Formats: sequence, structure tokens, C-alpha cells
Amino acid sequence: MFEIDLQLVQIGTIISPIQRPGDAPRQGNEGGAEAWIDIDPAFRDAVDGLAVGDEILIFTWLHQADRTVLAVHPRGDLANPLTGIFATRSPHRPNPIGLHPVRILDIDSRRGIKVGPLEAIDGTPVIDIKPVI
Amino acid sequence: MFEIDLQLVQIGTIISPIQRPGDAPRQGNEGGAEAWIDIDPAFRDAVDGLAVGDEILIFTWLHQADRTVLAVHPRGDLANPLTGIFATRSPHRPNPIGLHPVRILDIDSRRGIKVGPLEAIDGTPVIDIKPVI
Repeated sequence: MFEIDLQLVQIGTIISPIQRPGDAPRQGNEGGAEAWIDIDPAFRDAVDGLAVGDEILIFTWLHQADRTVLAVHPRGDLANPLTGIFATRSPHRPNPIGLHPVRILDIDSRRGIKVGPLEAIDGTPVIDIKPVI
Repeated sequence: MFEIDLQLVQIGTIISPIQRPGDAPRQGNEGGAEAWIDIDPAFRDAVDGLAVGDEILIFTWLHQADRTVLAVHPRGDLANPLTGIFATRSPHRPNPIGLHPVRILDIDSRRGIKVGPLEAIDGTPVIDIKPVI
């Protein structure tokens, strides 16, 4: 058995008008914003092949989440029964990975990739981008 | 600016008859297997609320991937033009996160969660589970 390295690298950063978690909708399609993914220069070659109009999945690291939470009342509503975190989309979970389906609105070699609608807040680390199959 | 911790925790492990990457199909629906997610005992409370028949997304850490790759010929076919890794589903990428849509086939308090069809190989670390919305 070899040691497995589970350390993520930050490949980009969300630049968004949504500044605080309390201002963010629960899902992008519930009032998300247009935002930029500022791609780290070390990873710019990895975005070749993406095009305006493409549907992509952005993977983020929800850095303000509470990683100790194992169960929640979904959508913060106490009328919903306490539910294991893996049966919910709560940001508070052992690995706070955000998954965001968005459309590419613009690509700029300097500013990065413009996408929307996105609920992640300004400054959120981006850890992966995949095309929608 | 505070320091952001980007260290994942392993919440479970894939138990699959697929033993080697060369035996794995490229996507679960291209010949994936029935497999178990062995949930780490520390995270068992987080699966309450999942049920047989549910569609879920399994997030894995593709621990045998090459993290230095930034561009590939999609599906390993040299006839496909060299493409930035974020425009592909290649496992070789800076953060080798696997995203697997599967259905829950069984839940067993001892063995974990049986799912399928899944292309991830035996021993693959699991890092998150989310319901399909």
C-alpha cells in the first residue's frame, strides 16, 4: 500500500459580484451571477479547446464551509428532517467541493473565462473544470 | 487574506471487480461494473437519507493519474487534436477528481453502498457524494 496524496492545487479563482455567502443563492439557476474564472497562469494551456457557448462543470473549494458537519436540515429549514450530508447539496461537508453547471459567456486571454449563472462567492478557489458530456 | 486549506479527507473507498486502469471503460455507461463504496466509519452518519434507487454523483480521487498533464489527444486517439485538459474528461489533470453518476443498488450497514455502473478501479478513494438534482 502506497501513500495517497490528497492535496489539491488551486487552478483559478472566482471573480464575482456576490461577496458574501448570505448573498449567494443556493443554486446558480436560483439567481446566480455572471462571474469570471481567473485562471492561474501555470494552467492557461489547460483551457485550450473551451469555447463560448460551451456548457461546463466548475469544481470549486467552498473555503468558508464548516467541514465538521455530517447532517443538516436541508435548505436550512427546520421543517425538513435531519439528513446525512451526502444526501444533500449543503456546502458544509467533509470535503466542501462545489459543483456548478454553467455556460461560457466569454473567453479573454487576460481576464480568463466568463461564465454564468454562478452562485459561488468572490474569491472562491477553482479546482477543476470539465465539459458537460 | 487567510490561508486556505486544500487538503482532502478520504471518506470511503471503491471496492470493484475492475482492478487495473487498463481494464476500466472511459465512462460508467460504457461497460462499468457494480461496485461498493466502503464508507469510513467516521462518516457513516453522513449517508443517512440515501436510499436504494437514488441517483447520486460519486466524487473520487483518481490516485493513479499523472497530475502534470495539461493537454491530451481526447480518448487517447492521435487523430483527435491536442486539447487543453479542462476541455476533456481525461483522468490525467492537475486535480484528478473523478465524477461518476450512478444509481444506488443496495445499502448495507456493514458493507456500505452498492452502486453501478461505475468505471473507477478497486481501491479508488472516495471524497464526496451528492444527490443528483
